[in-house]
Amino acid sequence: MEITVLGEARYPSPLPYHVSDTARAVFNVVIDPAAEPTEELRFEVAGPRERLFFDPQKTRAGIVTCGGLCPGLNNVIRSLVLELRHGYGVREILGFVDGYKGLDPWRGSEPIPLTPEFVEDIHNEGGTKLNTSRGPVDVSVAVDNLIRRKVDILFVVGGDGTQRGGAEIFQEAKKRGHALAVVGIPKTIDNDVPFVSRTFGYVTAVEEAAKVINCAHTEAHSVQNGISIVKIMGRHAGFIAAGATVASQDVNFTLVPEVPFQLEGEDGFLEALKKRVLSRAHAVILVAEGAGQHLMNEGPEVYDASGNLKSKDIGLFLRDRIDAYFKAESVPVILRYFDPSYLIRSVQACAEDAILCDFYARNAVHAAMAGKTGLVIGQQHDIFTHVPIELLAKHKKQLDLNSPAWLGVLASTGQRFAQFAK
Amino acid sequence: MEITVLGEARYPSPLPYHVSDTARAVFNVVIDPAAEPTEELRFEVAGPRERLFFDPQKTRAGIVTCGGLCPGLNNVIRSLVLELRHGYGVREILGFVDGYKGLDPWRGSEPIPLTPEFVEDIHNEGGTKLNTSRGPVDVSVAVDNLIRRKVDILFVVGGDGTQRGGAEIFQEAKKRGHALAVVGIPKTIDNDVPFVSRTFGYVTAVEEAAKVINCAHTEAHSVQNGISIVKIMGRHAGFIAAGATVASQDVNFTLVPEVPFQLEGEDGFLEALKKRVLSRAHAVILVAEGAGQHLMNEGPEVYDASGNLKSKDIGLFLRDRIDAYFKAESVPVILRYFDPSYLIRSVQACAEDAILCDFYARNAVHAAMAGKTGLVIGQQHDIFTHVPIELLAKHKKQLDLNSPAWLGVLASTGQRFAQFAK
Amino acid sequence: MEITVLGEARYPSPLPYHVSDTARAVFNVVIDPAAEPTEELRFEVAGPRERLFFDPQKTRAGIVTCGGLCPGLNNVIRSLVLELRHGYGVREILGFVDGYKGLDPWRGSEPIPLTPEFVEDIHNEGGTKLNTSRGPVDVSVAVDNLIRRKVDILFVVGGDGTQRGGAEIFQEAKKRGHALAVVGIPKTIDNDVPFVSRTFGYVTAVEEAAKVINCAHTEAHSVQNGISIVKIMGRHAGFIAAGATVASQDVNFTLVPEVPFQLEGEDGFLEALKKRVLSRAHAVILVAEGAGQHLMNEGPEVYDASGNLKSKDIGLFLRDRIDAYFKAESVPVILRYFDPSYLIRSVQACAEDAILCDFYARNAVHAAMAGKTGLVIGQQHDIFTHVPIELLAKHKKQLDLNSPAWLGVLASTGQRFAQFAK
Amino acid sequence: MEITVLGEARYPSPLPYHVSDTARAVFNVVIDPAAEPTEELRFEVAGPRERLFFDPQKTRAGIVTCGGLCPGLNNVIRSLVLELRHGYGVREILGFVDGYKGLDPWRGSEPIPLTPEFVEDIHNEGGTKLNTSRGPVDVSVAVDNLIRRKVDILFVVGGDGTQRGGAEIFQEAKKRGHALAVVGIPKTIDNDVPFVSRTFGYVTAVEEAAKVINCAHTEAHSVQNGISIVKIMGRHAGFIAAGATVASQDVNFTLVPEVPFQLEGEDGFLEALKKRVLSRAHAVILVAEGAGQHLMNEGPEVYDASGNLKSKDIGLFLRDRIDAYFKAESVPVILRYFDPSYLIRSVQACAEDAILCDFYARNAVHAAMAGKTGLVIGQQHDIFTHVPIELLAKHKKQLDLNSPAWLGVLASTGQRFAQFAK
Repeated sequence: MEITVLGEARYPSPLPYHVSDTARAVFNVVIDPAAEPTEELRFEVAGPRERLFFDPQKTRAGIVTCGGLCPGLNNVIRSLVLELRHGYGVREILGFVDGYKGLDPWRGSEPIPLTPEFVEDIHNEGGTKLNTSRGPVDVSVAVDNLIRRKVDILFVVGGDGTQRGGAEIFQEAKKRGHALAVVGIPKTIDNDVPFVSRTFGYVTAVEEAAKVINCAHTEAHSVQNGISIVKIMGRHAGFIAAGATVASQDVNFTLVPEVPFQLEGEDGFLEALKKRVLSRAHAVILVAEGAGQHLMNEGPEVYDASGNLKSKDIGLFLRDRIDAYFKAESVPVILRYFDPSYLIRSVQACAEDAILCDFYARNAVHAAMAGKTGLVIGQQHDIFTHVPIELLAKHKKQLDLNSPAWLGVLASTGQRFAQFAK
Repeated sequence: MEITVLGEARYPSPLPYHVSDTARAVFNVVIDPAAEPTEELRFEVAGPRERLFFDPQKTRAGIVTCGGLCPGLNNVIRSLVLELRHGYGVREILGFVDGYKGLDPWRGSEPIPLTPEFVEDIHNEGGTKLNTSRGPVDVSVAVDNLIRRKVDILFVVGGDGTQRGGAEIFQEAKKRGHALAVVGIPKTIDNDVPFVSRTFGYVTAVEEAAKVINCAHTEAHSVQNGISIVKIMGRHAGFIAAGATVASQDVNFTLVPEVPFQLEGEDGFLEALKKRVLSRAHAVILVAEGAGQHLMNEGPEVYDASGNLKSKDIGLFLRDRIDAYFKAESVPVILRYFDPSYLIRSVQACAEDAILCDFYARNAVHAAMAGKTGLVIGQQHDIFTHVPIELLAKHKKQLDLNSPAWLGVLASTGQRFAQFAK
Repeated sequence: MEITVLGEARYPSPLPYHVSDTARAVFNVVIDPAAEPTEELRFEVAGPRERLFFDPQKTRAGIVTCGGLCPGLNNVIRSLVLELRHGYGVREILGFVDGYKGLDPWRGSEPIPLTPEFVEDIHNEGGTKLNTSRGPVDVSVAVDNLIRRKVDILFVVGGDGTQRGGAEIFQEAKKRGHALAVVGIPKTIDNDVPFVSRTFGYVTAVEEAAKVINCAHTEAHSVQNGISIVKIMGRHAGFIAAGATVASQDVNFTLVPEVPFQLEGEDGFLEALKKRVLSRAHAVILVAEGAGQHLMNEGPEVYDASGNLKSKDIGLFLRDRIDAYFKAESVPVILRYFDPSYLIRSVQACAEDAILCDFYARNAVHAAMAGKTGLVIGQQHDIFTHVPIELLAKHKKQLDLNSPAWLGVLASTGQRFAQFAK
Repeated sequence: MEITVLGEARYPSPLPYHVSDTARAVFNVVIDPAAEPTEELRFEVAGPRERLFFDPQKTRAGIVTCGGLCPGLNNVIRSLVLELRHGYGVREILGFVDGYKGLDPWRGSEPIPLTPEFVEDIHNEGGTKLNTSRGPVDVSVAVDNLIRRKVDILFVVGGDGTQRGGAEIFQEAKKRGHALAVVGIPKTIDNDVPFVSRTFGYVTAVEEAAKVINCAHTEAHSVQNGISIVKIMGRHAGFIAAGATVASQDVNFTLVPEVPFQLEGEDGFLEALKKRVLSRAHAVILVAEGAGQHLMNEGPEVYDASGNLKSKDIGLFLRDRIDAYFKAESVPVILRYFDPSYLIRSVQACAEDAILCDFYARNAVHAAMAGKTGLVIGQQHDIFTHVPIELLAKHKKQLDLNSPAWLGVLASTGQRFAQFAK
């Protein structure tokens, strides 16, 4: 997994400690003679380099945050600014506002000069002080702007689409002969980035989701035959659902995108739910928003007054099906629906995520100052690494159904109904 | 406001301090020569009495919790049990389960014997260890059961409907010659009980609602033209909405049942919202579930596939109207909808509510042991009082639009659009 | 309780709602024919007046925060600024820094111009953005400075000493013919201000203290014969200790300044503690820092190497005495000592205190704009009032041993040993 | 790193997924041609085995918790019980109380039968429901007792001393021909166990410590020349101090046991502190309790009245030295001392630790049921492993001064004074 460099690193680093460019972190740490051999992957180890490509005194850096909110965005911005300024002595740092829109001088606002004073207290707030937006970047316009503003380094904080945009910006700059280091910090609250064992914000989201589950459990447990349904983020992967299940220990059924399941019939989810309710008089269901999409054609369709089909929602779908099922079975239940939505992502980062953000950000600065480009900072087995952006595009991380994360869910819920590995 | 007593109080109280039966707390503490004179109301002051009607050694008490959850229910149960047992020496205490259903031996489960051991740690949990349910009591069956079980005192924790049921139980018992003290502790997270300045759980709900508003503010503030709508409990009264607005200071529009408002037109809410968004680029709207009911006939109707009209929801209604309005005005906005629902009521009571619960519960025990019946414990101006249950039925507490609570909302939001006092 | 006014109020108020100058809140709301008659006290009701003494367009206000930290200081500053600016249209507001030192141009820094932008997010932080200090004001120098800077209104946030300083400033300004409104907002985390039923920050302090007690309880309860001692703020009054005891329900002995007690002997505290430990195997003791001062001469003296007597601390004193006692009695115990100190006062205000701060601050602005001076904003029975500063000096608020606050402590702890009313 | 097994595993596992006995997790995941080669360490991978040594129907297990409290103890107990019962079908589980004392029938209480009902809600509380104590085990007496009670498996939750005791118990049982599986779960809030990348409770402790630092920062920042000193746990290792520094970002000086430092002189800590105070007017110092022990002979000695030398405390020592230094330098400062002590360890486990506890506990059950003994569950690079207890005794984990954990501290504090690698 070689990383592109802009050229020879010629300037001495002001930092006291350095990581060798030849150090590699292995991807597979379990050696199992009984298992099939897997491809060996090795990643460059992140960290400060002995020599720099950019002269800190003359370097201008930019930062942009894109996509949905995630706890820790302000921590990342803050540590980028402080490492650039205090670690390396870089004095000019621009904060592009409103996501990629801010790289476009025709659509965006003027960037904010980022100083230690500006960022001093921002890590105590959720959200992002640079604002964010969705949508792709106009690569040509962005590179024009970056060249005009003499930006040498661009830090891109965002999901995989955002990072691909970052790679295109680097390629376009290269074409035009502008040595631009583009370094990404992966951001997704869903924790579904390959080669990144934990994205920042995930632990906080699990903590907040566990609080919601605690309320759902209390509601279900305080009435006869109480059923609480909690819908949680996780479009393509069930990491938040899995983490919150094991953390709270109070979920009885966890439904994730990776595990299609049968709704009806003797082995189906509804029958299993009924058994639980009849024997224990309460149940808590946690459903990731991307779960059970295969079931949605079965449900009754909902139209608005104009006759438009309304988009399907697994949480509401399940609520309606459970309601109908128990009515048909003449089992009185009290259904409560919880949709915490953005509540788990707009809070301040917890301590564990705050630490992670600091490490991601400072390693991103180290990589950029050494002239590395077209990469994101990854993390494998406690080791921060350099991951080529192209790798992100090729893979998608989902729950491994043989991992402790999912086996922990099965152990904690004891859920038994027809579930299928995809 | 005289309180019914079961008979002469003959037993000496084991407690060291007593309140006189002739002490009265005044209801109006502001004397204003410039204002119209109001009726003078005086309430019996709650507290331990010198002499008791019941002999503690021979008394059997019961407790029942009814209606929706509210932070502090377990605290109330715990303090009732501990005051009965440790304060007075009452040894037999029954916890009727599942609300009023539990008073009916044909429908309910066997009551739980309540001991100091059973209640020891329950105040650290939300919900109610006695479970709850909605629905009226079958007075005749309940009184049969209470007589059969030799229950002398029934503590009823619930809303005004529940308390009226309690009054009927007392009347029926009296008819049958059974001296039953029925003492209520008012419970409503909405804080809308007359003659009770603050119901338990309200402060906790405000604290939780303020956290949600903080997230909503962060979401709105982190994008260009972000609008967050938060729907909060409050069917008939906007106390939670008002409290959370002033506590968070981050709400720009607060909509409550007490203040109908105009949606459309130059002075309407939508126009005011547009002005805010255009000038400040973000807005937070807090809407109590009972607000704006007068507007709901105007909105587009939503049908399910069976052609049934779905019930209206002011939160979703506003979301759709705001969305349509800004589209029509060609102002791009990012709308986020927050419905914390039960999340604000199923948490553990905060310290302030924990204290309130303890005071309500112990005063209820004092009243019951003195043989008072057909009352609820009220609170006026820091003074706990005895309020005849009939008084609750005659009044409904709503936000006084000249009170600091509402004027604080106007000052904190600065909201200006056509609002009408009812 | 008449309040001094600077002169005739001539300017119309821009606010829509007004309180009459003749309205009075009664102090005693309980009428008890069985009790001795008490002096009738009536306070001016706080709130916006119909006519103002100061012309908002030409008014310059200043704010100063003095003494120790208290949750809510930033909330108070923020609401003062926003009410002055948005409520009345006052545009010049100075924040004097570092407490009273900041009124002295020779010792203090330049004041900060306070704007809505400056205060926008400060309510989300503990501490005070204006900094604070202890120590008296040099009245003559301060008034020179206030006159030179053309300050019309000075808001003083601080304890009773601070408020007396404020009164002297007003008197001195009057002498010099400068119409200066000095309006105080009482600040003491101990809640011991007379005629103020609850000072801001107190509820937050109780909440934090209850968390510490929860830890102390866990420590004591997880070992054989665990004893946890928690020392808490409260030099002259035990309000925090009493509130935290009832809130947590996990304290077995609460010691406050108002209730001297016997340490040794059959009826003493140590014997009672031993009984508790032998019967229940754990105990939690909560001691206010001002409790038990009468005992301190009895303890062993501690000297440093220079032979200086070290000052006494009731927490450490008790710890040592308990340790020695149980050793002498050959009862093995595990003692844990908790001194949360500043941890309960430097946090952000909870929702309930945030509301209180807003009300205090806005009422202070209303009073000042109407030309009232030499007063603090008080609160009695939910009514905000105007209290002449001189009244504060004459009284000191302590726990009333017949109030629910203290009776709740006795009920919750069940503590029985020789305690004396002072 | 081979693990001792009690004998051939003959019983089929009821679990659906298995880990091979030949799978190994590598210890070194970074391969660096530029670095010196290190010894290759490989650990058995933890997880359910295909065949069991114990017949679940006939197995009796015991659990004991030893040493100081740590967030997550109840989570561990709960998951051990639930995995044994629901995962394997083991029905007899004994909870030995009061730590190792509980293994001694002469000194301890009767063990508690542990059921799913008993453990249902215990994960929501700090502390340990089995109680704990310090002190070694009387191996002979303990094994007598375990044999008499027919205990097949003993789960030992505790620090390295405790685990060595566990190994001795296993050896003694083996001598007597009793097949006893002893499986340890490492417990130390300090996170200083070798071959265990993170012990449970550590993340929670860091979260709590960060809150204290936030208060300390607020206190220091709200006055002129405020200096806050926070003393935190960490006798032999500074992991909590390092984590809390990076998490809070508000510490200016972090002192840990691994880095001795110079106090006096031009390059000393006091001079660096003065520079900070003079330039920034506030400072926060975080000191692990085991830091700076080399300095303690220099300080003034403190005697009690009996002439006994009192034991030294780096926190108080530093406080006194800083106080004296600034007085000598005539720089007025306001010193605040914070000693949160047990407050960071007696709280409930956070979500991240709750997950970790569940994984440790279930893996311990898997190992024990397969007949493995004399091991603790370790974690390396996200992989749970089996670590022979002897290995723990040979090594001690401390902060690696070239690790991100410590480099992050240097970057975040920017601290510069004479520090020495040991």
